[in-house]
Amino acid sequence: MRDPRYDILFTPVKIGPVTAKNRFFQVPHCNGMGHAMPLAHAAMREIKAEGGWAVVSTEECEIHPSSDLTPYVEARLWDDRDIPALALMCDKVHAHGALAALELSHNGPTASNLYSREVLLGPSHQVSKYGYPSQARAMTLHDIREYRRWHREAALRGKRAGMDIIYVYAAHDLSLPMHFLQRRRNQRSDEYGGSLENRVRLLREVLQDTRDAVGDTCAVALRFATEELLGPGGVELAEAQDIVGMLAELPDLWDVNLAAWYNDSVPSRFATEGAQEPFIDFVKKTTTKPVVGVGRFTSPDTMVSQIRRGVIDLIGAARPSIADPYLPRKIEEGRVDDIRECIGCNICVSGDMTISPIRCTQNPSMGEEWRKGWHPERIRPAPQPTRVLVVGGGPAGLEAARALGQRGHDVSLAESRKELGGRVTREARLPGLAEWARVRDWRVGQIGKLNNVSVYLDSPLTAQDVIDFGAEHVVLATGCHWRRDGFGRSNGLGIPGLADHARVFTLDDLMDGRLPEGRVTVFDDDGFYYASVAAELLRARGCEVAYVTPEDSIAPWSVNTLDYRHIRKRMAKLGIEAIVSHNIAGFDGSTLTLEHEWDEQRTERPCDAIVTITSRLPDDALYQQLLLRLGDWGGAGIRSVRCIGDAEAPGLIAHAIYAGHRYARELQEPVTGEVAFKRHFHTADPDDLRRETPA
Amino acid sequence: MRDPRYDILFTPVKIGPVTAKNRFFQVPHCNGMGHAMPLAHAAMREIKAEGGWAVVSTEECEIHPSSDLTPYVEARLWDDRDIPALALMCDKVHAHGALAALELSHNGPTASNLYSREVLLGPSHQVSKYGYPSQARAMTLHDIREYRRWHREAALRGKRAGMDIIYVYAAHDLSLPMHFLQRRRNQRSDEYGGSLENRVRLLREVLQDTRDAVGDTCAVALRFATEELLGPGGVELAEAQDIVGMLAELPDLWDVNLAAWYNDSVPSRFATEGAQEPFIDFVKKTTTKPVVGVGRFTSPDTMVSQIRRGVIDLIGAARPSIADPYLPRKIEEGRVDDIRECIGCNICVSGDMTISPIRCTQNPSMGEEWRKGWHPERIRPAPQPTRVLVVGGGPAGLEAARALGQRGHDVSLAESRKELGGRVTREARLPGLAEWARVRDWRVGQIGKLNNVSVYLDSPLTAQDVIDFGAEHVVLATGCHWRRDGFGRSNGLGIPGLADHARVFTLDDLMDGRLPEGRVTVFDDDGFYYASVAAELLRARGCEVAYVTPEDSIAPWSVNTLDYRHIRKRMAKLGIEAIVSHNIAGFDGSTLTLEHEWDEQRTERPCDAIVTITSRLPDDALYQQLLLRLGDWGGAGIRSVRCIGDAEAPGLIAHAIYAGHRYARELQEPVTGEVAFKRHFHTADPDDLRRETPA
Repeated sequence: MRDPRYDILFTPVKIGPVTAKNRFFQVPHCNGMGHAMPLAHAAMREIKAEGGWAVVSTEECEIHPSSDLTPYVEARLWDDRDIPALALMCDKVHAHGALAALELSHNGPTASNLYSREVLLGPSHQVSKYGYPSQARAMTLHDIREYRRWHREAALRGKRAGMDIIYVYAAHDLSLPMHFLQRRRNQRSDEYGGSLENRVRLLREVLQDTRDAVGDTCAVALRFATEELLGPGGVELAEAQDIVGMLAELPDLWDVNLAAWYNDSVPSRFATEGAQEPFIDFVKKTTTKPVVGVGRFTSPDTMVSQIRRGVIDLIGAARPSIADPYLPRKIEEGRVDDIRECIGCNICVSGDMTISPIRCTQNPSMGEEWRKGWHPERIRPAPQPTRVLVVGGGPAGLEAARALGQRGHDVSLAESRKELGGRVTREARLPGLAEWARVRDWRVGQIGKLNNVSVYLDSPLTAQDVIDFGAEHVVLATGCHWRRDGFGRSNGLGIPGLADHARVFTLDDLMDGRLPEGRVTVFDDDGFYYASVAAELLRARGCEVAYVTPEDSIAPWSVNTLDYRHIRKRMAKLGIEAIVSHNIAGFDGSTLTLEHEWDEQRTERPCDAIVTITSRLPDDALYQQLLLRLGDWGGAGIRSVRCIGDAEAPGLIAHAIYAGHRYARELQEPVTGEVAFKRHFHTADPDDLRRETPA
Repeated sequence: MRDPRYDILFTPVKIGPVTAKNRFFQVPHCNGMGHAMPLAHAAMREIKAEGGWAVVSTEECEIHPSSDLTPYVEARLWDDRDIPALALMCDKVHAHGALAALELSHNGPTASNLYSREVLLGPSHQVSKYGYPSQARAMTLHDIREYRRWHREAALRGKRAGMDIIYVYAAHDLSLPMHFLQRRRNQRSDEYGGSLENRVRLLREVLQDTRDAVGDTCAVALRFATEELLGPGGVELAEAQDIVGMLAELPDLWDVNLAAWYNDSVPSRFATEGAQEPFIDFVKKTTTKPVVGVGRFTSPDTMVSQIRRGVIDLIGAARPSIADPYLPRKIEEGRVDDIRECIGCNICVSGDMTISPIRCTQNPSMGEEWRKGWHPERIRPAPQPTRVLVVGGGPAGLEAARALGQRGHDVSLAESRKELGGRVTREARLPGLAEWARVRDWRVGQIGKLNNVSVYLDSPLTAQDVIDFGAEHVVLATGCHWRRDGFGRSNGLGIPGLADHARVFTLDDLMDGRLPEGRVTVFDDDGFYYASVAAELLRARGCEVAYVTPEDSIAPWSVNTLDYRHIRKRMAKLGIEAIVSHNIAGFDGSTLTLEHEWDEQRTERPCDAIVTITSRLPDDALYQQLLLRLGDWGGAGIRSVRCIGDAEAPGLIAHAIYAGHRYARELQEPVTGEVAFKRHFHTADPDDLRRETPA
């Protein structure tokens, strides 16, 4: 079954005292569930193991209350009471022949201690990283000994939980061994500061401590950042090369990447597959130990190339394992075109950032494994296969049709345009968003393999068409459009004069090729990626572009997908002026009047056109017409009509995919109570967790 | 014991079918524990009941998964499984003769549904309030019926939990009945939109529904915002007066305030005690039902005046009940000068905002009632009273001395200056921060009542002085100072040229009366209140002030204390230019060179002086000297020397108070494990909670 070219991906790799059964390595990644939702977390990790990953890691794991990451929810091993949650994960990962890995971390000045209320620790006195108005104190030699003890005890607890690989963490600007390396965080004058040898001392000691504590049965991995892209204040490649040389054979595994997180998990808009290679390819030349690296790898050919060319030994993945937990198994089974490829949108990251369970645009089952029992590959066959009409071939409609087809229904998908994909196809043509198309392509490919799904392009339907069609269930996924009238977060009653103005454009106009010229203002009252993409498009077309927003920062929500810094830098590089804290007070076609949000002063500037990115309206006219004809449904054999995705409430592509999937899952299933999923509750006894664990 | 003038505060008030035993009413307030920490939450509410509040309310309570407030942690009643957590609170509140109140809420477009993944609901299609890139859909008439059913069922669940008062919530721009009132959120054309009568319809229906469902034994309260200060897009006073007239006798209680939260819980810097009176005093003239209102009331004379003058019937309080849960009892017992008055710093609010347990500057036991067993009034007597020397009379030292004294130790407090209070005294002289002094005044007052605490002013100590003093335990609370050299979040290696520049000032210089003149740049790399206060001070002294920060917004952390909007508006009003996203690249005494954080372009501007607000360094020289003389401790009878508060790690005043209190609590007590408090764990069974509840 398997293409022999990919055999090398399935050769075992010895990592210290343990052996990975193949080269697929799910590196540590956050997920917004962590210690707060241990049952959900363990089930999510289990699916990865089931999907063929040889190693399945936790997210970073707090080792002590002085490294409390609140509000972020990661793993936790403060004392023995935290072992059951991680033991649960180990059991589930081991059940599928995979190794479990644990990333221990003390986050020093990048912790918050908002919950524990301990004093923050750091190499030197310094402010906390994330803005909380408290400082970390310079650790004494006693503190360093204590920290090493906590790390050792956490490693032992990890071993007791059943972990096979214990990580020492020196990456992402998030852990003490890295903070001691950084000159901007370490101004010590003792044996832990100053020279490189001194700044590396703590990392060396902790690696040795971990090996001494658990190295008999556990592999010791080092996650290490080779570059921070911050200049001399940060870890730089040349110094990282020296460090790898100094510690080359000490860990059993090198897991190497870039810091901080926004330079590691770069959105696809700003980095391609394998982009880290120039920063990490020296490592394998420096050590005999296996090396794992990441690069949002979804192509088995790229993976093989990485290994053949001696870049890395193990294919590290976070995002590709989220988009497709079955990626390894699909390659193994010769089903490469079934791989659901990550689109690099980083909606997964936004779960951690917003303290909510991880979700994935491509994989709607992500985060739902335990609470809804959703599996990324399997779905319950329809109890009574029936005829379903899906109207609209955007993300919601495509996913609904695909999953309904997988369940065995007789599905017809009607798309009014001449191409599938809806907003995904349209947005994928905007600058930097080409990979969005993978959302469409995977679904079109899967639908193509189903005999029970028919697709009709160029097929706009009227209410009468729908009634005449003869489907038992009708689902409308007819999308939405951007408002022109300024209605949005900052202008709940719109902006007078915009609605019918010939020189006011929407993102739909731009995607339809109707483009403004000259001096253009992109007015962003949305806050995510759309406005910056519009600005980039217009700049490339030669417009003079200003980015105006009533918010106090441009694209504020994009912090949650790690886009923010990249957007800021790109806007700056393109010469797009960012005008924050300003609302539109008037526009006469050549002059734009802005009003400052805080001092209410008005200013005028020449402006030939405005692109409004404020809010959207559902295209639900067909749904509304069908509701008016409720009396005709029975005679036509229609038992239900539903409206989903952007046509119900405009949102992310991820929301649309989820809505389509949920519709397909729930059709003909019994209605649950008000809460359609299992929940975690709270208790003073950690052993209560075991009640749901099989004895 | 009680002053007869205050008798009126202790007369019962009938509220529908229940009776409040006095006029002290803890209105609903968030606390960052909510449904995630039910044992901690219930214990916190119990202390309020014990302290004499006649009514103790929850925070807002989610009634349905479509009103999921993640990441914020509030109360939850999605289904029967949520009853045990609230029943626990009711039992504990009832044990002290108080009534329990429940604030039901469906937050519509101001929810997130990040956890539940339900589609957001709203009166009309609109973007979600808090920036999440998803929209709420316009509710159908069916949705409205469903919402009413959910609310009714939640009311019934509240009654089953033991609640005495059930709130309908139409305040803070946070709940559907209010959203239907707002023209900017409600553009409906049916019977729920348009005219005021139509926009009030839903609120009227829900009030009636709640009365029908639980009104036989529970009072129905309405929390209602009379003004949003947003002009015609928001609820305005004139319309609110009409609404109160329309619904006057429908609720059993009116709880009235301003919206949004930042206009309700205004920091003391921007509003005085009783500031809401002009916006709510009409209510009592319009209804015969009792009225509760808030105003950060801590003075019993003000409270009596509010009642005598017919402004309100019940003294509502959130923040004063946090700073002093025993406020009613202290008035009742004639101990008015024992009241620990709220300083209006809103650190309590920051708990909810940062998804962490509530803390209070004045009351270090807040949030610690369950997990550490801390009581705001009681503290375990010292097992072996001994001699303790406290060095430094700032917040940490004062609180340590007070609590050590309360425990029965023989305490000496040595302060090097001629006045007590340290940073609190100094900061209280800055514009708007006068109430900070309450932190000092309460402690000085309490210490004055203790015979076993001696205070020595004007008493700088050397290490030899400490060794000669003859104390068994020494605690150093010697504070910190602001760095002049630019070291901080954005400049980990400082800013060259600043350290010794005669025209570079720190906040300490300003507090010492050393003030710059002319064109002054306040450089903020801290992000909280200090820089804006410095800017205000200098502007008042006639300087031309620019506020420069490398952050993309000024004072970003102040969002968490609800200061942010007020700071922005005040800076604008004072004509202080806000220059964001800029770092300092150079300063020659007359020209300041700035570098843009994103495009790296440099600009120059005339500047006579810089005030750097970047980070602080502990003043721990005495501690370091004592550590060097460890060998002399034994001979001098010294068993321990500790360094606490800003002298250990600069932070908030709240951190210093907590550190002083913790030191006093823990002295001579057995050392706990790594985790010095009880925790909540996770389970799939809500009944596991009951294991810790007395049978």
